[in-house]
Amino acid sequence: MQPVDLLLTGGRVLNVFSGVVEALDVAIAGGRVVGFGEYAARERLDVSGRTLLPGFCEGHIHLESTMLAPAALARAVAERGTTTVVADPHEIANVAGLDGVRYLSQAAPADWLDLRLMAPSCVPATPFETAGAEIGPDEIAEMLTWPQVLGLGEMMNFPGVIGGDPQVLAKLQTAQGRPLDGHAPGVTGQDLMAYLAAGPESDHEAVTLAEGEEKLRLGMWLMVREGSASRNLEALAPLLRSGLRHRCLLVSDDLEPGDLLERGHLDHLLRRAVALGTAPLDAVRAVTINVAQRFGLARVGGIAPGYAADIVAVDGLERFAVSTVLRGGMVLKHDGLWRAGDAAPVSTSAAVRDSVRLTLPTAEQLAVRVSGDGPAWVRVIVAQEGLIVTEAAEAQLPVRDGCVQAAPSQDVLKLAVIERHGRNGNIGLGFVRGFGLREGALATTVAHDSHNLLLAGADDQSLATAAAAIKRLGGGQVVARGERVLAELPLPLAGLMSDLPAAEVVQRSRELQQAAAQLGCRLSRPFMTLSFLALPVIPHLKLTDGGLFDVDHFRFTSLTP
Amino acid sequence: MQPVDLLLTGGRVLNVFSGVVEALDVAIAGGRVVGFGEYAARERLDVSGRTLLPGFCEGHIHLESTMLAPAALARAVAERGTTTVVADPHEIANVAGLDGVRYLSQAAPADWLDLRLMAPSCVPATPFETAGAEIGPDEIAEMLTWPQVLGLGEMMNFPGVIGGDPQVLAKLQTAQGRPLDGHAPGVTGQDLMAYLAAGPESDHEAVTLAEGEEKLRLGMWLMVREGSASRNLEALAPLLRSGLRHRCLLVSDDLEPGDLLERGHLDHLLRRAVALGTAPLDAVRAVTINVAQRFGLARVGGIAPGYAADIVAVDGLERFAVSTVLRGGMVLKHDGLWRAGDAAPVSTSAAVRDSVRLTLPTAEQLAVRVSGDGPAWVRVIVAQEGLIVTEAAEAQLPVRDGCVQAAPSQDVLKLAVIERHGRNGNIGLGFVRGFGLREGALATTVAHDSHNLLLAGADDQSLATAAAAIKRLGGGQVVARGERVLAELPLPLAGLMSDLPAAEVVQRSRELQQAAAQLGCRLSRPFMTLSFLALPVIPHLKLTDGGLFDVDHFRFTSLTP
Repeated sequence: MQPVDLLLTGGRVLNVFSGVVEALDVAIAGGRVVGFGEYAARERLDVSGRTLLPGFCEGHIHLESTMLAPAALARAVAERGTTTVVADPHEIANVAGLDGVRYLSQAAPADWLDLRLMAPSCVPATPFETAGAEIGPDEIAEMLTWPQVLGLGEMMNFPGVIGGDPQVLAKLQTAQGRPLDGHAPGVTGQDLMAYLAAGPESDHEAVTLAEGEEKLRLGMWLMVREGSASRNLEALAPLLRSGLRHRCLLVSDDLEPGDLLERGHLDHLLRRAVALGTAPLDAVRAVTINVAQRFGLARVGGIAPGYAADIVAVDGLERFAVSTVLRGGMVLKHDGLWRAGDAAPVSTSAAVRDSVRLTLPTAEQLAVRVSGDGPAWVRVIVAQEGLIVTEAAEAQLPVRDGCVQAAPSQDVLKLAVIERHGRNGNIGLGFVRGFGLREGALATTVAHDSHNLLLAGADDQSLATAAAAIKRLGGGQVVARGERVLAELPLPLAGLMSDLPAAEVVQRSRELQQAAAQLGCRLSRPFMTLSFLALPVIPHLKLTDGGLFDVDHFRFTSLTP
Repeated sequence: MQPVDLLLTGGRVLNVFSGVVEALDVAIAGGRVVGFGEYAARERLDVSGRTLLPGFCEGHIHLESTMLAPAALARAVAERGTTTVVADPHEIANVAGLDGVRYLSQAAPADWLDLRLMAPSCVPATPFETAGAEIGPDEIAEMLTWPQVLGLGEMMNFPGVIGGDPQVLAKLQTAQGRPLDGHAPGVTGQDLMAYLAAGPESDHEAVTLAEGEEKLRLGMWLMVREGSASRNLEALAPLLRSGLRHRCLLVSDDLEPGDLLERGHLDHLLRRAVALGTAPLDAVRAVTINVAQRFGLARVGGIAPGYAADIVAVDGLERFAVSTVLRGGMVLKHDGLWRAGDAAPVSTSAAVRDSVRLTLPTAEQLAVRVSGDGPAWVRVIVAQEGLIVTEAAEAQLPVRDGCVQAAPSQDVLKLAVIERHGRNGNIGLGFVRGFGLREGALATTVAHDSHNLLLAGADDQSLATAAAAIKRLGGGQVVARGERVLAELPLPLAGLMSDLPAAEVVQRSRELQQAAAQLGCRLSRPFMTLSFLALPVIPHLKLTDGGLFDVDHFRFTSLTP
């Protein structure tokens, strides 16, 4: 018999099928596990004292939320034991359409990460905003022919599904027989059943035990989400101990770069799940074989002959400290040291590199004009710490030269959404309370879901400075005061992702946060809160490039009450 | 809200996800389950007192073994609760190649049965026989583009896989990422691991508990087989109670028409499994959701919103008496009565209808000539009751006019395999012991795996009569004596399947058996035993159209020792 390529010696293998942990040497050839036990091998790798797990599989994430370039992201998660990611490239698709999805599919080194995609189903997210692209059934059909695309990404338009919107149903129909991901926050009873009847098979929006259990009992795959924005593991952990545990996955959904680098990726979720009383075997299954099952990934998610040699060595089933990572039989990391070198440079498409096609607003365009010179009553969006839901309020604001002014003394900033895809130059203006900024402005091109330029500031000069900085950076996040830029994070990839190393992205994010705090900002994650102010599917009052939007009545509304 | 198409009222639904049985009305629209509970409905169907199960899914069967035409088969299994069948059309492929597979894929009414196929991987089964077709990687690639074809059928050539035969590996490579079915009887340890390393993911050949458990622990899907020829459920039943039960399926593999009509299909396997101590929930899962999981069948195998409305009503979880069957929301059977009418006639391809291209052998061609006139020693195949394995022996047979004669007094018949695909007219001659025939002959075109004409008889006249009858029938099974045909079953579809109603096929099979018994036959299923005498992959001595074959040394051998 030919010697195998590699023998992992001295480790204990967790068998996700039988649940048994057993001391076994693992033989690898041609990128796959080929056997257990004694084999002649060209190379041996000592993993004594370690427990070997299948490479972790992320079942639902928007990669763009990490703000890392695909290669940097691949390395960051691979170092933490993740070897397969199923991503929904919803954000980049809203900016750059199929070109953006194609870029993402090619930019992560396959040697490090088995990246699969779900075709984004909701681009644009609503008709009430200007996105950079539209994706209809034809575009979905095209993406489904790409080898990396597994199925249809989260169908967020649940009212459209339940109401039988033909365009929405056509998208689901296009992907019939392929995995269909759902998104049904708080949907229950007959509405939930009507949603499921149209095809979605999974959900990552359950926040209560009852909601999670109802979804599982109705046949859904339950993606227990524990990300940066939403953390539902504690509430849903009992399901990981139930008879329904084989249909549970642990997923991130959104993951900020700081959380990724400091807490971890799926290794962190394993620690959390076990700390919350989940049996280690069931926790591991929820990031390995269950994910493979849900998506029909062939021979992934277990350590067994014929399975991809995606293997993680950890110090034990409590700390899950990742010491060694193999992907396709290649040793990426061993004894804690990265051994796979740097990623090959990946060319980026013009659609991704030059996505910020922004005409800077004139002073007149940023003006909110009213008749008369007395203080004016306006509707105000109320941002809330840690929530993406806003409240609606009213405020009486000063007027100067016929223009309504921000009023930092009342904690009211001017808010602007400026179309930046080079399509129509729309500008939506409004006001927001809750940031606490005494002066200066924040700006970001990460602005769900259309990712236009979103600005919030105490004065028009600061807004203009921030906008100009964004244009110069080709997308990013900025804190400015008057004519000065105080902190900036360039995000030249679709205005969503950086090309800097992961650690620097985290560092710059921190600087942005500190600069905002020095201007008086009270929010713990001001850019995350800001990024959701333009999302017109989340209650209650939002601002798009089309204007102020009343989510409760699902229509535009006037700035003055 | 629109009224739904159909409401099933008064039943109790077994939820294969949660394991709970709950009284729930089931709403159906557009062929799918759309909800539970109160719905306005255009039609209501009372299933009071019944337990509703997902339609049963057969994970591995050679349909041809039932000898029923696809439409008759579809009705016979649908009446017994089977709504999905994954078939490996290995037999018809050996006769009629891709035309045969295409015929099978189209001939079963989709209204009655969701028929999926696995592309046959081993056509011809060996290079030591003449089949009607060859299927290589290109033909497999073509079949994989057909919507009904899920993956690659059982890779029986396990020595070729383990030995790294490039042609065999090329077939597996062609189907990478699709379900790959295995076949590894008695293969264990490093050989089994080497087999799995090349891709096969399932096995239906395990006969002992240890064998089944090893396969499951190595990540295989275990198809617990309980068919007509092989019955392994009793030995493997403990696995259906184990932590590995989620990866077990109950399958038929081969199923004779009498067994199908008298005992049942998967309903019979459910009864057997529960009688052997399997929890009803786990038994049901093994013929529903587990099958769907193994093959990645979307929204099949459960009763839940969005799932195909393939639903079976039974009287309880012990007898599993099927009273009502819905397929895609259509009521096929209710209160025990078939309501779906007759199948639309399906055109049959010439490749299937005219598959017996047989030149009748001359007397000279059937003669076994030796020099000298004294009795001659020859090698004799020893057929054994209930086994497909043969033994090898020798016998001293009388010689007349220079030709070795059968010797019924010693229980030795002449055996002939006549190539019948119109390719080369090969004739292989030999002798067989064990049938007990005192006179007459048996003939069949069901002769694994190349399905040439196989004859066994006490005298050449009877052999000639039987062969002529087969030619007249265009394929089938015959018992003859002298110049008379005593019983016959026409199998004009590829020489494998009948176009008669199921009950008549069973009746005629019985008549064949009775006629054989009247000629002295001691075997309980002489045609089954006969059909395996030409299969050169089963030990120890076999006969193909190329001659006598020594399986142990995997080479042809001489008739005289």
